Amino acid sequence: MTKGRIEAFSDGVIAIIITIMVLELKIPHGHEIGVLWPLLPIFLSYALSFVFVGIYWNNHHHTFHAVKHVGGWVLWANLHLLFWLSLIPFTTGFMGENGFPAHTVAVYAVNMMMCALAYFLLIRALVAQHGVDSDFSRALGSDRKGKLSLAAYVVAAPIAFVHPALAMVILAAVALIWVVPDRRFTAAAAEHGPK
Amino acid sequence: MTKGRIEAFSDGVIAIIITIMVLELKIPHGHEIGVLWPLLPIFLSYALSFVFVGIYWNNHHHTFHAVKHVGGWVLWANLHLLFWLSLIPFTTGFMGENGFPAHTVAVYAVNMMMCALAYFLLIRALVAQHGVDSDFSRALGSDRKGKLSLAAYVVAAPIAFVHPALAMVILAAVALIWVVPDRRFTAAAAEHGPK
Amino acid sequence: MTKGRIEAFSDGVIAIIITIMVLELKIPHGHEIGVLWPLLPIFLSYALSFVFVGIYWNNHHHTFHAVKHVGGWVLWANLHLLFWLSLIPFTTGFMGENGFPAHTVAVYAVNMMMCALAYFLLIRALVAQHGVDSDFSRALGSDRKGKLSLAAYVVAAPIAFVHPALAMVILAAVALIWVVPDRRFTAAAAEHGPK
Amino acid sequence: MTKGRIEAFSDGVIAIIITIMVLELKIPHGHEIGVLWPLLPIFLSYALSFVFVGIYWNNHHHTFHAVKHVGGWVLWANLHLLFWLSLIPFTTGFMGENGFPAHTVAVYAVNMMMCALAYFLLIRALVAQHGVDSDFSRALGSDRKGKLSLAAYVVAAPIAFVHPALAMVILAAVALIWVVPDRRFTAAAAEHGPK
Repeated sequence: MTKGRIEAFSDGVIAIIITIMVLELKIPHGHEIGVLWPLLPIFLSYALSFVFVGIYWNNHHHTFHAVKHVGGWVLWANLHLLFWLSLIPFTTGFMGENGFPAHTVAVYAVNMMMCALAYFLLIRALVAQHGVDSDFSRALGSDRKGKLSLAAYVVAAPIAFVHPALAMVILAAVALIWVVPDRRFTAAAAEHGPK
Repeated sequence: MTKGRIEAFSDGVIAIIITIMVLELKIPHGHEIGVLWPLLPIFLSYALSFVFVGIYWNNHHHTFHAVKHVGGWVLWANLHLLFWLSLIPFTTGFMGENGFPAHTVAVYAVNMMMCALAYFLLIRALVAQHGVDSDFSRALGSDRKGKLSLAAYVVAAPIAFVHPALAMVILAAVALIWVVPDRRFTAAAAEHGPK
Repeated sequence: MTKGRIEAFSDGVIAIIITIMVLELKIPHGHEIGVLWPLLPIFLSYALSFVFVGIYWNNHHHTFHAVKHVGGWVLWANLHLLFWLSLIPFTTGFMGENGFPAHTVAVYAVNMMMCALAYFLLIRALVAQHGVDSDFSRALGSDRKGKLSLAAYVVAAPIAFVHPALAMVILAAVALIWVVPDRRFTAAAAEHGPK
Repeated sequence: MTKGRIEAFSDGVIAIIITIMVLELKIPHGHEIGVLWPLLPIFLSYALSFVFVGIYWNNHHHTFHAVKHVGGWVLWANLHLLFWLSLIPFTTGFMGENGFPAHTVAVYAVNMMMCALAYFLLIRALVAQHGVDSDFSRALGSDRKGKLSLAAYVVAAPIAFVHPALAMVILAAVALIWVVPDRRFTAAAAEHGPK
């Protein structure tokens, strides 16, 4: 089965998620530049989530570039990922509009954790589909960054209840390790020539 | 006529439908985790509709994978399906925000019934286009699951007026029989080799 | 220059326009089926606009199927069309929420007129690009339906001020003549074999 | 790495940005044509931003048409551009709803400046990817219009604080020089034959 439509549908959903988040930036009353300051935490939470959703799109792009077959469970694993990603605008707004208090950061970290878990399951479904000895699975390698991120989110969520600022630092650190372009699949693709 | 754009347009519309539903999850006042509980019925109705819309996308994907020609009435049958799907965010919110009372579940079931009917008509239009003896029609088979779902919705709508919980069980059961990957078209595609 | 991206971008914009219109169907207070009746005019205006936008997508699909080259002005003529289409959710809501009074029907008819004019200009830009003797221009023919529609909208707008119901009948009649599949390009495509 | 998905994702995000701006046109109370006049500044700011976003889509289309390779940093440079573009609905509404007072025009000009800067960085990343002696870099040329626009925005932002109307004239002039179709890449593509 061709992978084109699963990519196109995922691109569409992720494009909408990343864009409707900005609707939380409600236009303030007044026209002085000062009326924008109270929006700063919402803006920061938006920028952070934009980076996170961008990372997922980026990884989705790289992963599916190496994908050869798309079977039935892969479609559902992908929809499962999109479900948790679709909650990011809500948890981002909950955190940003309240100014990053403890509970809201914990909810945000749990959302991130579920996204990472869903991505992990998607990759498992793809590996099962291709076989452990396939080009796809070799290109993927040990997925160390994915497992590390998931662990970081599991840690960040409870920490947020007592020390939300530290939890945010952990979340930002996870974002940072992903922004550096992932060389796994690009390297594998280069080995096998242009496509 | 190429089927690429009808797939791309449907992907776009379905991606938007599945994503704007989350806008019904309004950010609550307060920042304690407790303020999220009243949102639980809305969240559940969102998750259910996400699965339903995901099933339609999935089936659309499988069906059009086998499609060879796209004639004039197919475009309208497809738009007719998208129309009823586009009402799902409304009927989902009507049901979820009110906590699943009888009338709202009936309206939701009727929406589901119209979607199933529209899908049935789309498949009839495609069979008419390809001919009853075509590869497409053979791959489709008797469409037993489609007819069963339509019948279940017809039953669920009146039941909802007297026993909404039972109607919800019927709707959830229909979702379940579809989440298991549909082997019809994948099997047919496998027989004819990769494409 | 390839036409793929102009099709994809137009599909995206039209998909969003056709879907966000449903956001005007605000979820009512109360959970009895009776609370939905006041939404009927909004629902009807939504259904009508869904058909109109569907017609534009359909025609766009057929027209670009025959297109060979996409030059600079075609991109702007296409964006100009998308601009007027993007106002349809607003004029639809203005008409539907107020229950189809005279002024709102006139504004809606003017919106429709500008869309038809923009489509006419897009087709002129495409004909200029391909040459009057091209396959594209021959497939297009005299564009009688396009010119007739434009004329009907020019007539409907002033009529709406004195007799909105008659203007609505004219608009609905225009929709009807387009819903019948356009055989111009499909016939021309069939002559030149599958593509 | 294929450039198809980065184009598709950008098309999706830009399509959503250009379309959700119209949601700022809130349906007014009343059904006389006169209730629309107070919306005129919002409508004008929407039309202006529609043209600006259209220009970015247009340039993105032309630039990526000439692109051969898409490496890791290009993806992030592209997301960075989409981030600033995604703020346009907010800054447009802030300016339009208030009737173009000084501070809001300055904020809008800064948004435009950041978009132009992000586009400049995207083009740098693409040149670095392809090499200075590549077909891509030759097709791009000196990017005089891009640098001129960036300079104009840098000038317009401080001017807006003392003379918002003059700043708007500068912004409109920048739009005008871009609406004329860009012949750089089309000429280069023509030289190398159809693709």
